[in-house]
Amino acid sequence: MQMDGHQIQIDGERLWDSIQAYAQIGATAKGGVKRLAFSTLDYEARDQFVDECVEMQMSISRDEIGNIFATMEGSDVELPAVLVGSHLDSQPTGGKYDGALGVLAGLEIAKSLYAAGKRPMRTLQLINFANEEGARFAPAMMGSGVFAGKLNLAEMLEKTDLDGVSVQQAISLDRSGAHPTREGRPIDSYFEIHIEQGPLLEMEGVPVGAVTGAQAQRWYEATVIGSEAHAGPTPMIGRQDAGLGAAELALAVEQIALAHGPDGRGTVGVIVPSPMSPNVIPGSVFLTIDTRHPEEDVLLQMKDALLNAANQIAEKRRLQVEITETWHSPMTPFDERLVSRLEHFAAERQLDCRRIWSGAGHDAVYVAASGVPTVMVFVQTKDGISHNESESIKKEDAVAGCELLCDAVLERLFSEVEL
Amino acid sequence: MQMDGHQIQIDGERLWDSIQAYAQIGATAKGGVKRLAFSTLDYEARDQFVDECVEMQMSISRDEIGNIFATMEGSDVELPAVLVGSHLDSQPTGGKYDGALGVLAGLEIAKSLYAAGKRPMRTLQLINFANEEGARFAPAMMGSGVFAGKLNLAEMLEKTDLDGVSVQQAISLDRSGAHPTREGRPIDSYFEIHIEQGPLLEMEGVPVGAVTGAQAQRWYEATVIGSEAHAGPTPMIGRQDAGLGAAELALAVEQIALAHGPDGRGTVGVIVPSPMSPNVIPGSVFLTIDTRHPEEDVLLQMKDALLNAANQIAEKRRLQVEITETWHSPMTPFDERLVSRLEHFAAERQLDCRRIWSGAGHDAVYVAASGVPTVMVFVQTKDGISHNESESIKKEDAVAGCELLCDAVLERLFSEVEL
Repeated sequence: MQMDGHQIQIDGERLWDSIQAYAQIGATAKGGVKRLAFSTLDYEARDQFVDECVEMQMSISRDEIGNIFATMEGSDVELPAVLVGSHLDSQPTGGKYDGALGVLAGLEIAKSLYAAGKRPMRTLQLINFANEEGARFAPAMMGSGVFAGKLNLAEMLEKTDLDGVSVQQAISLDRSGAHPTREGRPIDSYFEIHIEQGPLLEMEGVPVGAVTGAQAQRWYEATVIGSEAHAGPTPMIGRQDAGLGAAELALAVEQIALAHGPDGRGTVGVIVPSPMSPNVIPGSVFLTIDTRHPEEDVLLQMKDALLNAANQIAEKRRLQVEITETWHSPMTPFDERLVSRLEHFAAERQLDCRRIWSGAGHDAVYVAASGVPTVMVFVQTKDGISHNESESIKKEDAVAGCELLCDAVLERLFSEVEL
Repeated sequence: MQMDGHQIQIDGERLWDSIQAYAQIGATAKGGVKRLAFSTLDYEARDQFVDECVEMQMSISRDEIGNIFATMEGSDVELPAVLVGSHLDSQPTGGKYDGALGVLAGLEIAKSLYAAGKRPMRTLQLINFANEEGARFAPAMMGSGVFAGKLNLAEMLEKTDLDGVSVQQAISLDRSGAHPTREGRPIDSYFEIHIEQGPLLEMEGVPVGAVTGAQAQRWYEATVIGSEAHAGPTPMIGRQDAGLGAAELALAVEQIALAHGPDGRGTVGVIVPSPMSPNVIPGSVFLTIDTRHPEEDVLLQMKDALLNAANQIAEKRRLQVEITETWHSPMTPFDERLVSRLEHFAAERQLDCRRIWSGAGHDAVYVAASGVPTVMVFVQTKDGISHNESESIKKEDAVAGCELLCDAVLERLFSEVEL
């Protein structure tokens, strides 16, 4: 299976230096990165990526939503291409590794092939997906969503940031010199390496994970309506305190997630009481509920439990509790064959690797949802912290993860056999 | 005791018409009143009050914080004066009765004396306390607080509204023509009638209450600190969700108030999670806690219980919970002799009247705290709702309450005996 890509090895030092170098673009005082989508700093990182690819004679194209494709043509151009991607944009106070690791791992694979003078059998295409974070322009994973046909291009181009600048306007500043043409070539497979953004690998002392897919998500908005009243004269008995209803709802969300553990997740991230005055009993509260589970039917059971809990709280406290589902992201399994190959190569390298579900969304999720055989490698993340300037990973884990990714990518690049 | 004031009766129709007339000044579309302290509309109401008093040959003075005093000199100017007051300012979406009832009840007593050609033995002084609501300029009860020597005049004059206008500047717009001199005459007693702003009288079908004093209050600010993390990849076990800690704290506040019932009160009115994102576990939450009880030592027991609950939540959820007391308003008993006189006159009138604690702050509380014998009459409030345009009371209850107040005021006005 390995063919003659087998001898190619990535250069771990070069990879790590590259990550640290890109982290200087938009570096923050606290050691993080601020590289909002389509900002000057994002363009600087994009340009640097394009320049490095051009140096290796890779051809560059850019599609209408701003995704950058760097192509190393394979010896057999009829064979579907192997894609490696992630994103260079960051959160406003993001870390050095979220996204950049994946783009630069792909770049390192290309550099290793180029340095070895090896032309792959299949075409290798590196992708920098635009606006994965959604921090400046919502929604997140905009570039991969449009690429995968899951988000509407025209709608996305009209999205604006808080200053009223549209995606269309922001993309027009692209100085990459690439042709704004849509990529349409057949795809063999998609690979992405990313920091875990959770604590599981660290808790188990495992450096890398073979990602089996992304959890299903259902998001809700809840409104708890009670009766605003004066905190002094109003007896405790008989109050219709929307704040306490919301508190019980938040705790119910936790209980529901625990009851559907260990994979169930339930989070109340937003709580806004009204009228928000120290001596007024809240008359209403708005809150958001984020639920996740790898299995769709379990996620629906969690929904039932949520609606039941809401009814019980409403009845007990004589409140109205209204719950509206605002978003459903279906469970997205990755390609089982590719997951197995990751495990195979990890075993060959005597690298400790466990299967893991992705709780977060990634560009890979949209790509997988469009039917492309997809897999991800996760790298252990310090304290599970991301979207934070203190985000950190170990160099040896990053290198080990990229070596593993490279093994699987090379196997596809040098295989004429279809998946 | 009653002397020759005994025959004076207020005119209930005139009182009610007066209340409705003042409610036109700043009337809102929903039937409420917007008359923020020192606004043009507040000055309109103040001017109307002054005009009505001047028509009765009362003398007007105004102190440095903007309280208006309208004085009907008694036949024996050596005797300490009897004060009747409340406030004409309102909440932004306030009701017709909160404050205005008390000022206009005093005015009605003066009108009744004037119409009957009766000069009281003691001086009658009507007071419109400035900025009771604190809605435009915090803190609340500013005028009575300065009058009572409990708030510092210079500090209060520097307080600004959201537009940066200071109290000093706003007061300078006063067109009442009064001299800004501080009142310093000896005081016999202070009377105030006010809507209950709670549901107790209505629940018991009692039209009026004889207020025994104001509950002690302790206010706190709490910060719950956990660890911000991604709602997807982070397992339920091991989360340090500050939002859930805050939810448990809010519910603990309720339990503590219930355990110190029926007079204990505990309210969480403000809850602000951070970073306030649907898919991020709250890393910290700010909340306010308002606790009240008529007895200081019970309120301190409630404080102990609160700190214990906070520690338990912190330990159980591995959070930091910091609680800071931000305000203490001591228990303020009203004058037992005056309370008893109210009960006496209620019995004479076969008016159903019960003793009641004030859960809210009132101008009377500062006046009582300064050592002046003080009492309040409460009027049943529809659904206990105030600080709301739908605030409502029954005409017959308002009239009965004012008659009761008038009985007690006249007794003092026509008595040369000291309390």
